[in-house]
Amino acid sequence: MNDLPGSPIRSGIPEHGRVPKYYAVKAELEALLDELGEGGALPTERELAARYEVSRETLRQALRDLLIQGRVRRRGRSTVAAGPKLEQPLSLASYTEGVRRQGRVPGRTLIGLEQIGAEGQLAAQLRLPAGAPVWHLERVLLADGERVGLESTYLAVARIPSLEQEFDPGASLYAFLTEKLGIEFGAADERIETVLATPREALLIGTPLALPMLLLHRLTRDAAGAPLERVRSLYRGDRFSFTTRLEPGS
Amino acid sequence: MNDLPGSPIRSGIPEHGRVPKYYAVKAELEALLDELGEGGALPTERELAARYEVSRETLRQALRDLLIQGRVRRRGRSTVAAGPKLEQPLSLASYTEGVRRQGRVPGRTLIGLEQIGAEGQLAAQLRLPAGAPVWHLERVLLADGERVGLESTYLAVARIPSLEQEFDPGASLYAFLTEKLGIEFGAADERIETVLATPREALLIGTPLALPMLLLHRLTRDAAGAPLERVRSLYRGDRFSFTTRLEPGS
Repeated sequence: MNDLPGSPIRSGIPEHGRVPKYYAVKAELEALLDELGEGGALPTERELAARYEVSRETLRQALRDLLIQGRVRRRGRSTVAAGPKLEQPLSLASYTEGVRRQGRVPGRTLIGLEQIGAEGQLAAQLRLPAGAPVWHLERVLLADGERVGLESTYLAVARIPSLEQEFDPGASLYAFLTEKLGIEFGAADERIETVLATPREALLIGTPLALPMLLLHRLTRDAAGAPLERVRSLYRGDRFSFTTRLEPGS
Repeated sequence: MNDLPGSPIRSGIPEHGRVPKYYAVKAELEALLDELGEGGALPTERELAARYEVSRETLRQALRDLLIQGRVRRRGRSTVAAGPKLEQPLSLASYTEGVRRQGRVPGRTLIGLEQIGAEGQLAAQLRLPAGAPVWHLERVLLADGERVGLESTYLAVARIPSLEQEFDPGASLYAFLTEKLGIEFGAADERIETVLATPREALLIGTPLALPMLLLHRLTRDAAGAPLERVRSLYRGDRFSFTTRLEPGS
């Protein structure tokens, strides 16, 4: 991976780079999926392997790629053409709003709401003494009833003591903080990367272990600049993309 | 994947979900990598397989995950602990600036600069008649001499007729457009997703095919709101993360 750049790239080699057999099959399948349209079901693996004259193993590799990319999805025993990825705006507004704007029905399933002691990095980010009590709210994110993500939010208990009593875990935390508690949001810093789900995360979201996910780390401040919440949001890479508007000077 | 959410999630099962053997090994390796520190080399596969009493196959699966996540990298024949991912700000400013800010040396390798005819979506985005000539500038992005991404930029030839003569493909296009041509940038719309590299892309960037990449699609406008460039940037998911500042009301 650390080859020096240069000649191997400049020479037209890439144009003639060998294409793995499974990849050629994948291209055929993509054309077929376009014909089928969203929701259209692929023939069985046996039929496809025969049609393209490849081994079941080669065919499965192509299907695995298409699954990871979100071009297909499993429906019961069949594999169907998937719809486009959701386009979620990067914004302070809630997941709920973003999903609604795309005509999908948002939802959340509570995994847990507990108090933990803030450790090193979390304590530092929330500007709390080590061991200070912090709410950890963990929820599975749903779109049209399908599990699409997992969200962990950390808030100082001292800041929101009533969270457990007053907050409906199925609702938008953003709405609760702004409308119910009248907290004004300030700027937030967000970092996006791609990661593989841990076994626990894959189980909670119901994805294969090897599925690349989009991971968002966010530190939200209030209008006074004081840290308000630390959020770790994991989204299925085969279902989500994120959009943002870049302004000049930014 | 389409199981209804609910009881299986609520009933702490995930906490007790079976952890695949390779994943347990991966956790051991992560601890070992922390001890080694950046650049520290792992023992051979043979030694590691013996140490953790697993098959070479299981060990390789754990190493493959660590490679995909950017925790390790290959150096010649050995596998070493990788440094942290680059944190590239999402901004209109050039790749060059973002990488410099992190104390890395940015670079670019020209793959090609050619004129093509704008087709459907590209023509629409650049507001050009179908077939209108468009520059396609393709470059490999480098950080400290290592290939980390692949950038395709599309500009109307009518807008920048002198590109081929006046632009140094190793330099920042952003700087060329703003400083040399005095073009003022307006807002840009960007979309981020995670994808797998195509064989050609993997060959150009020098990554394994299965490596998840971060793909950024951008449409940049000038200060007058006219489409200026369409950019498709592919970044190694094991090397890059992207940061942004979210403002209230955004």
